[in-house]
Amino acid sequence: MSETQLAFDRKTKPRGSLGLLEQIAVRIGALQEVAVPPVPDAAIVVAAADHGVAAEGVSAYPQEVTAQMLANFRSGGAAVNVLARQAGARLVVVDAGVGAPTASIAHGPAMTRAAAEEHVAHGRSVAVELAADGIGLVALGEMGIGNTTAASALCAKLLDAAPVDVCGRGTGLDDAGVARKIEVVERALAANDVDAADAVGVLAALGGFEIALLVGVVLGCRAERIPVVLDGFITAAAALVAAQVERDAVDAMIAGHRSPEPGHALVLDALGLAPILDLGLRLGEGTGAALAIPIVRSALALLNEMASFDEAGVTDAGR
Amino acid sequence: MSETQLAFDRKTKPRGSLGLLEQIAVRIGALQEVAVPPVPDAAIVVAAADHGVAAEGVSAYPQEVTAQMLANFRSGGAAVNVLARQAGARLVVVDAGVGAPTASIAHGPAMTRAAAEEHVAHGRSVAVELAADGIGLVALGEMGIGNTTAASALCAKLLDAAPVDVCGRGTGLDDAGVARKIEVVERALAANDVDAADAVGVLAALGGFEIALLVGVVLGCRAERIPVVLDGFITAAAALVAAQVERDAVDAMIAGHRSPEPGHALVLDALGLAPILDLGLRLGEGTGAALAIPIVRSALALLNEMASFDEAGVTDAGR
Repeated sequence: MSETQLAFDRKTKPRGSLGLLEQIAVRIGALQEVAVPPVPDAAIVVAAADHGVAAEGVSAYPQEVTAQMLANFRSGGAAVNVLARQAGARLVVVDAGVGAPTASIAHGPAMTRAAAEEHVAHGRSVAVELAADGIGLVALGEMGIGNTTAASALCAKLLDAAPVDVCGRGTGLDDAGVARKIEVVERALAANDVDAADAVGVLAALGGFEIALLVGVVLGCRAERIPVVLDGFITAAAALVAAQVERDAVDAMIAGHRSPEPGHALVLDALGLAPILDLGLRLGEGTGAALAIPIVRSALALLNEMASFDEAGVTDAGR
Repeated sequence: MSETQLAFDRKTKPRGSLGLLEQIAVRIGALQEVAVPPVPDAAIVVAAADHGVAAEGVSAYPQEVTAQMLANFRSGGAAVNVLARQAGARLVVVDAGVGAPTASIAHGPAMTRAAAEEHVAHGRSVAVELAADGIGLVALGEMGIGNTTAASALCAKLLDAAPVDVCGRGTGLDDAGVARKIEVVERALAANDVDAADAVGVLAALGGFEIALLVGVVLGCRAERIPVVLDGFITAAAALVAAQVERDAVDAMIAGHRSPEPGHALVLDALGLAPILDLGLRLGEGTGAALAIPIVRSALALLNEMASFDEAGVTDAGR
């Protein structure tokens, strides 16, 4: 049994009665190799980029919305701005290629391998800077019209799943839109005959700039021993790539919520993660991860601040 | 469609994409008859009392633990203290009868009808005082060794359910303990032949002092149009009694979490409530409700603070 679990078992409560909160604290304790990790300051990293595949009509929204929402993030009016303020978390918005889309994955690779590596390196540097600033918890978010299609293609490839099993409604497709998205993912897989074992190659072929950046954030946080709270399907796809690049990257991951996208559940299963929240959110931006921040912080606050049976003079039934 | 939903539909996000958060805001808007309810200050009311039925061996813990935990609440070392601080909520601990237990429900009524009415009135006054202090959101919590047995008896009676279908492990019973608890609930129902349609009579026969007090808090909050966040099985049993006393009390209720107690799911179904959290908590004290406070506040903050499509200049796809 871990030192963190032993510390929790001395607190004034029945053993295990804080459920998933205890498991979250134990996971962070293992990542940081300390029994009682401190309650961390948090940041939300939202990466935004445009996707050439948006031209295939795979989103309910036109491509211009990516830039409009980037401006909305910067003026503080988007959902994730509100939730960052509620959680007391710093919001870091990274423009990874808004207005400068990837090539359409329906016809060939989204970007060169060098571009993918450059965005991953950028993401790593974001994590390193946050660590240097004393941030101890990072939530992921994204914005990019068309990016559930890129995430679907990535997951279909990396999990060897059928496009029909990973594609969902995104931010609001009707049945015809979902059918078109499935067909586009099928074309993308046919147009990009890359080795599934080469995670960076798959990322360059099927990913987006913001997804590549988030892969780097995950890897950088793992190196800094900072837990990373995943948001919805797109951030989970980035986490899946990161886990194939470095297997122990999974140790840093916490699933913030479960989205209705069918591919999201497949990725969480593959990563062995149970989501904290299941609120029917399908917005992205980091909204689900932001809502999970207070819960992760609470798990560690309980571990740090609760009295033990001895300290409080409470009779311990031993179970 | 409600004015609150119409207000949410103008915000910069796909329609309905904030899932349960939108439903929570709509529910509070209907309760308060305003389109955009403000983000409220919150309090957690924890009621504690002892139960004569604890002498029947229905808990993993001895009765003295109720008083020990009351002292722990007052010195700030219990789980709910930590979570109240994390949520920025005021913690109000009410001693409803610690060290002065009810009579054992296994042999007859727990308390007189007058005593039940007195505790309900006390609970109403707590709600009225909180409203006068500007509190706009109340979470419920409880402490009382033996009180899952009282809650099980109440729910079996009011829902016409078999004791075996409502009794669970509480804070840590083994199989033999659960069997004993079922047998005690059966004896309590036999010893208290009260009319299920007389909710206050059922409360007096099978309840506890803290449960009666929480019934009053729910009714007082409904009268003040303050939303009430339920915690686990015991607070849900109090809510069930309140809903039978005044049918529209349900309009004020929000289910904070789902506990593993089998009776809890039955009560939430009967009240038509979907829980916000499902974290495997089985501690009580208001811990699940406290964790739900930031989510309820976030739902209203989103409604108040997000930019509209017009304000942000974002293209609205209309779905």
